[in-house]
Amino acid sequence: MRTNHPARGDRLPDTDAPVAAPIALDAMGGDHAPTEIVAGAVQAVREQGIPIVLVGAPRPLQEALSLHDAINEIPVVKAEETLAMDEGALASLRRPRSSIAVACHLVRRGDASAVVSAGSTAGIVATGKLRLRSQPGVLRPAIAVALPTRPNPTILLDAGANAEVKPEMMVQFAHLGTAYAETVLGITEPKTGLLTIGSEPEKGNKLVKRAHELLSAAPGLNFAGNVEGHDLLTGVVNVIVTDGFTGNVALKTMEGSVRYAFSELRETIQESRAARLGSLLQKKRLKDLYQRLDPEVHGGAVLLGLNGTVVIAHGASQAKGVSAACALAARLAQQGVVTRIGERLAASHRPHRLW
Amino acid sequence: MRTNHPARGDRLPDTDAPVAAPIALDAMGGDHAPTEIVAGAVQAVREQGIPIVLVGAPRPLQEALSLHDAINEIPVVKAEETLAMDEGALASLRRPRSSIAVACHLVRRGDASAVVSAGSTAGIVATGKLRLRSQPGVLRPAIAVALPTRPNPTILLDAGANAEVKPEMMVQFAHLGTAYAETVLGITEPKTGLLTIGSEPEKGNKLVKRAHELLSAAPGLNFAGNVEGHDLLTGVVNVIVTDGFTGNVALKTMEGSVRYAFSELRETIQESRAARLGSLLQKKRLKDLYQRLDPEVHGGAVLLGLNGTVVIAHGASQAKGVSAACALAARLAQQGVVTRIGERLAASHRPHRLW
Repeated sequence: MRTNHPARGDRLPDTDAPVAAPIALDAMGGDHAPTEIVAGAVQAVREQGIPIVLVGAPRPLQEALSLHDAINEIPVVKAEETLAMDEGALASLRRPRSSIAVACHLVRRGDASAVVSAGSTAGIVATGKLRLRSQPGVLRPAIAVALPTRPNPTILLDAGANAEVKPEMMVQFAHLGTAYAETVLGITEPKTGLLTIGSEPEKGNKLVKRAHELLSAAPGLNFAGNVEGHDLLTGVVNVIVTDGFTGNVALKTMEGSVRYAFSELRETIQESRAARLGSLLQKKRLKDLYQRLDPEVHGGAVLLGLNGTVVIAHGASQAKGVSAACALAARLAQQGVVTRIGERLAASHRPHRLW
Repeated sequence: MRTNHPARGDRLPDTDAPVAAPIALDAMGGDHAPTEIVAGAVQAVREQGIPIVLVGAPRPLQEALSLHDAINEIPVVKAEETLAMDEGALASLRRPRSSIAVACHLVRRGDASAVVSAGSTAGIVATGKLRLRSQPGVLRPAIAVALPTRPNPTILLDAGANAEVKPEMMVQFAHLGTAYAETVLGITEPKTGLLTIGSEPEKGNKLVKRAHELLSAAPGLNFAGNVEGHDLLTGVVNVIVTDGFTGNVALKTMEGSVRYAFSELRETIQESRAARLGSLLQKKRLKDLYQRLDPEVHGGAVLLGLNGTVVIAHGASQAKGVSAACALAARLAQQGVVTRIGERLAASHRPHRLW
């Protein structure tokens, strides 16, 4: 990642902007809340210099903070209620004072620069839409995930916010993903691919064929045509657009396949040469590789298209996953992805290209 | 795999039936046709005792056979035309004497028990539908692929024959896949899962929600509910049904992810300890693992729902992939998957369960 603060090394997230308002971290969402969430907040503050405000039930949070001697380091904002992991969209309406709702409210008031939550995805999406509202001109917010390609990650969206979409929405997804790639990854004229089942323009279902026509004609996009499932990890494009149903299936298939390949490999190697190779598998480089492919470490998914940055951390996030999500949220907020999306959508209605 | 001919060991495909008519092998389809196709035919005949008839242009086939001294072992049926790999559905109508069309004709006449082709999938599907016709009561033939789970493969369908489907078709896909699992894998009451984006019945798009209702009420199926992308390789169910668009994206994502994980691993290990580990990676066990995960070695995809068995080998198939596809075709034909599908679809219109 390029940095404009070489002197500060890794302590600050990559940014051109002054240090922004703190990240509002939903301390009650996630399988390991609040313990691991608080631990992740402490990591983010101490190791990366990211300002954090924890949102949730004060007493347990104070207790968790005291274990890290961090009571005076990280402020807590009270939220009476919590969205359970198994609660979906409706629950967010029933709980106006849930920790995720309060976190969104802080962003809306300008008291926080972004929201991070490891809670139920459906609950976060519904609450975010309700409390932050869609940006002007955004038909549907979408979930964007950074796939671990090199040298740059590939942005896949929609990864699950919209199971049912229209072709026009997929063109907007391309703008959302392009803004993400431009601001956070620093890529100029990011290439966008359309996920389908053949490289020729006429391949796919009705939705994708129409989306292909619209994307080909859309100003301000660098549309590279169709891509297929095996292109998710080849880095052939910077942004891959699809509907939220296909995107979610593809993402979970990718995660499951990588996990499967590694477990099969570990098993095979241990069967054959436990002593010698079993230990080698613990070697740092292999760990690093596995972690790069591990969804928890990507930094989480981003809900794009709202009047505020919302990062959805993996539900099973441990401290490291939480702090990675906070770092991603800080980058998104400080590099103004919301503003960039607004500019793109405004410009996309004009004939000329953006560059 | 259970076998009923222990005395014969591996030389015959697993079967209760008498040795059937030969497999009609399209010798002109595939990236490496006819050389590797012929080499695969020779392997199938000599190593597995599978009767084969090659379909294609006589002279090049005779030349290829002579390289193996197999001219008298494997008969050749003449086909004037060839479907190019990039030719789709329409081409099959333009070429009534293509090698794949002639192969289908042999099955229809009863002179062959099944068709194997490594040609263009779209061409094979279109030709198969036209020459063999759908079985009575089959709304749409579907492509079934065996995913490399253990102890039994998991059957995924539709893997790409129908980009646009109706919920009723997905119930039929469940019957096609169940018949495959019963006959070829010998599984009783195979469990079927519906591929979607959440485990709760209400998760997914309109198509999947309606399919869930129909599958839950369908007689003769052991419906286990929703599965997600990461379940493709967990073996939690025996059959996974989805539309041909989602199925094809998921399959190619799985193949690409496994390939990616292995290449990353090889690279990481070679960077770190070329001498010692580079060689270990060549070890037989790791090769075996990689090959089990390699789509070419699965034996190929099967087009189910036609009046005849059609196996679609990987377009890049080498000899081994071709002979594996022939072995799969022989098993499907000799264990009567077509008959079993007919029984299921007939019974599915009656209220009682099949068992």
